[in-house]
Amino acid sequence: MNNEQDNHQHQTAPQLEVCLTPALIPLYKVENSIVVIIDIFRATTSICYGIENGAEAIIPVAEVEECAAYREKGLGYLLAAERNGEVVSGFDFGNSPFAYTPEKVNGKTVVLTTTNGTHALHLSRKAKRVVIGSFLNLTALCNWLRTQNENILLVCSGWKNNFNLEDTLFAGAVVDQLKDLQFKLDDPAIAANDLFQLGKEDITQYLKKTSHGERLKKLGIEKDIAFCLQIDLTTAIPVLEEEKLVKLSI
Amino acid sequence: MNNEQDNHQHQTAPQLEVCLTPALIPLYKVENSIVVIIDIFRATTSICYGIENGAEAIIPVAEVEECAAYREKGLGYLLAAERNGEVVSGFDFGNSPFAYTPEKVNGKTVVLTTTNGTHALHLSRKAKRVVIGSFLNLTALCNWLRTQNENILLVCSGWKNNFNLEDTLFAGAVVDQLKDLQFKLDDPAIAANDLFQLGKEDITQYLKKTSHGERLKKLGIEKDIAFCLQIDLTTAIPVLEEEKLVKLSI
Repeated sequence: MNNEQDNHQHQTAPQLEVCLTPALIPLYKVENSIVVIIDIFRATTSICYGIENGAEAIIPVAEVEECAAYREKGLGYLLAAERNGEVVSGFDFGNSPFAYTPEKVNGKTVVLTTTNGTHALHLSRKAKRVVIGSFLNLTALCNWLRTQNENILLVCSGWKNNFNLEDTLFAGAVVDQLKDLQFKLDDPAIAANDLFQLGKEDITQYLKKTSHGERLKKLGIEKDIAFCLQIDLTTAIPVLEEEKLVKLSI
Repeated sequence: MNNEQDNHQHQTAPQLEVCLTPALIPLYKVENSIVVIIDIFRATTSICYGIENGAEAIIPVAEVEECAAYREKGLGYLLAAERNGEVVSGFDFGNSPFAYTPEKVNGKTVVLTTTNGTHALHLSRKAKRVVIGSFLNLTALCNWLRTQNENILLVCSGWKNNFNLEDTLFAGAVVDQLKDLQFKLDDPAIAANDLFQLGKEDITQYLKKTSHGERLKKLGIEKDIAFCLQIDLTTAIPVLEEEKLVKLSI
């Protein structure tokens, strides 16, 4: 193959990249990509479930105080915030996806407090589009991504700006579904896919060894974890519009 | 187990952590750890080989201009720098480990230009100790680390501040040798070890799929790559003293 052909191929093959933590987002050209935000335990899982169940919009905020400020706006927002695994006093619910049932969220706007996820969203807002991924909407998300013919950047929200295994494993699940499309993969995408191959037979078991899983177990939210690892429970794809996450029209 | 025992155990089990890129070093308390700097292709491999072969010291610098400045000091430094895979004109050699033979480096001080590795070293200098790792000195390094009873942080120099597979795979090889010691592993350490398990039967083959391997291949340094993946060719452990890397006295 001569150089011209080589260059041509490089220009036309879209990239499928994985950003392992929000701290690394500045290394990517988000404006050239569709960004998928991933925060498996539990923000993006709750967002997918809430949008699937008819929430009009979900507004992610970083701090409990920002969330509380929506109370003043008096427009009937549902407020979600927790500290140390407990719903903060005066709020409607915490971060458990079980709260996002049709009975509670249908037609409502939910303000969700999520430090890691909001940080990732904020740093990705210049992307061509920002959508939300979780195991719940895995295949629906991948089917939509397949049709876009754009560079894709999977952003793991991680834990306190560092790598975590559950978000990376989900990124690997997306790479696994899209890798037949001849995307150019970066090293994190290759690693994420390899880790997914190791864990996919029993993701729950695989993630038990993580430090984060241990931490969440101490918070008594094993049921939430099991819920977050269900594959293809939903089909809605939440998309960022201005400050709000709403259902993507396909 | 009651809380007191739980806390006690937490305090006494040292941590074995992997920092996947220099951009994430600020997330760690390097001052509480022995840091191992990893830059497999090719800086830390060349450093291990050079120190093994009798170099009195190796001084890592980030820029070719810094390296050239040592010429003015007139003390018989060997200067190593390359750009685009070629030795920079006027320098003694490039970054190929093959240059670091006993004939060339014995008794000499080498000034080595390495952007990624120098960045990682600079950010780690407050550590209890900073040592250099590569596949060449893997077992010697691990045997020494075993005796230290300290927290260990394996710092991958990565590629332009981002994750690369070869440095992570080596970190996984270290975790593999030390994991019987009941270290507390963080998620990156767990992931690195899992990737090493996938790749260990044929590391060369495993790394062929990486983007970085492709880039290095284009530079025509396949022989260097093969050299860098030799396990336990050397036993010297380079350690940082002031600005210089010298042989650790054991």
